[in-house]
Amino acid sequence: MVEFKSVNEFRLKGGKYFMPCISIDCVIFGFHAGQLKVLLLTIANYSSCGLPAGFIYKEEHIDASAKRILLERTGLSDIFLQQFYIFGDPKRCDENITKAVFEKAGITAPADNWLLQRFLTIGYYALVDFEKVNAKPDYFSETCEWYDIDNLPPLAMDHAQIVQKALLTLRTHLRYEPVGYNLLPAKFTMPELQSLYETILGQKLDRRNFQRKMLSYGILKKLKEQRKGVAHKAPYLYSFDLRKYHKALEEGFQSAW
Amino acid sequence: MVEFKSVNEFRLKGGKYFMPCISIDCVIFGFHAGQLKVLLLTIANYSSCGLPAGFIYKEEHIDASAKRILLERTGLSDIFLQQFYIFGDPKRCDENITKAVFEKAGITAPADNWLLQRFLTIGYYALVDFEKVNAKPDYFSETCEWYDIDNLPPLAMDHAQIVQKALLTLRTHLRYEPVGYNLLPAKFTMPELQSLYETILGQKLDRRNFQRKMLSYGILKKLKEQRKGVAHKAPYLYSFDLRKYHKALEEGFQSAW
Repeated sequence: MVEFKSVNEFRLKGGKYFMPCISIDCVIFGFHAGQLKVLLLTIANYSSCGLPAGFIYKEEHIDASAKRILLERTGLSDIFLQQFYIFGDPKRCDENITKAVFEKAGITAPADNWLLQRFLTIGYYALVDFEKVNAKPDYFSETCEWYDIDNLPPLAMDHAQIVQKALLTLRTHLRYEPVGYNLLPAKFTMPELQSLYETILGQKLDRRNFQRKMLSYGILKKLKEQRKGVAHKAPYLYSFDLRKYHKALEEGFQSAW
Repeated sequence: MVEFKSVNEFRLKGGKYFMPCISIDCVIFGFHAGQLKVLLLTIANYSSCGLPAGFIYKEEHIDASAKRILLERTGLSDIFLQQFYIFGDPKRCDENITKAVFEKAGITAPADNWLLQRFLTIGYYALVDFEKVNAKPDYFSETCEWYDIDNLPPLAMDHAQIVQKALLTLRTHLRYEPVGYNLLPAKFTMPELQSLYETILGQKLDRRNFQRKMLSYGILKKLKEQRKGVAHKAPYLYSFDLRKYHKALEEGFQSAW
């Protein structure tokens, strides 16, 4: 791995170390207490926000690149990132952003610089508890903050489209693989699980259908305890059966055809 | 678009027209009468088979590249191709294949040739009726043929992994979007639809669960006619409600949560 000490060094030497014309963008969704957010950077000297993004070292596996980029640009580590799409419209790149970064660093960029070529970008996404992670901006960025999914600021290039595609993927994944571990307390109620799904889906769900569906997946253990300190009709507590949870992550829900 | 008249011209001039270090591989699944196959090329002067693959012109949308590559390499057109994954292991490339092609054309390749670099590859897949299409090999290949999914020949590079990932994607898609239009006759029986699913999934399904599930999606019209010429208990015929079918393709099945 190479340490670049300035934007100018990055511009001059990056082309030697990174694969050409291909980048990675990370869509980090944050959930907590009924809120769904996205992690965005404010690009230095440019009016819109952007996703944490970066490049692939010539000898690096792309999954490792995604992890490293997320760490370098936001300080987040140990995040389970999943590739979801590659964005390949030839019009998706906006060299004005790169030029703005160069300008702030006092550099005039020649048109054939490696950073000013057409880039395809590989989208990776993750879902974390935004109260449990501490994100911080890198030297390309002024801020690194969580934004409500329903109230995003203007985004650079095709990043709004990348976020929407990631959200669609996350919602689709709810249909065939489990979610919730690390986002809910170890013991949770069915309404808490339902609230997580409703927040991700952005819609209200039928209570009975939801419960029937969740129980049919076989990943929940109903505990003998009930939630304490509730006035009346204390709800039952559940926990994930982690063995079955991870099996379902690997193989998808084996619900009856 | 550029016409390359030989492998040597391709080697010498391709780097000027194509994006560097990124290719496209097409996994074309063929279904007919209870059989699932994959379309493979025999690589000239090389012992294993490979997927139809190619490169992206510098100004071309990647979806357009996938269509063009499939047409150029197999003669297939009007195929609905879907991107499913990008393969980015730095060890996935095998320069021996390129060298074998070069050798057959009487070329010694210098190590810095654009075709001998590390390539990421974008996987696209499609599902067609193999009786309705007529595939033919291009000048890189000796044959272009359908192979049973359960009996594939040795495949070049990571192409076996690419086929498996495409198959997993196809099977997963069955959970939330419709399949069957263009693969079944306009009027079909429930057992015929079930046979299609069983062939793709590679497993037997419960008849009653399957019927209940299919009807719950709201994409089928039950016709008044029954299949004729059957000895006794003639089965009902169904057709797809194409408006609802295409809506479900766009939005996924809106089955109750």
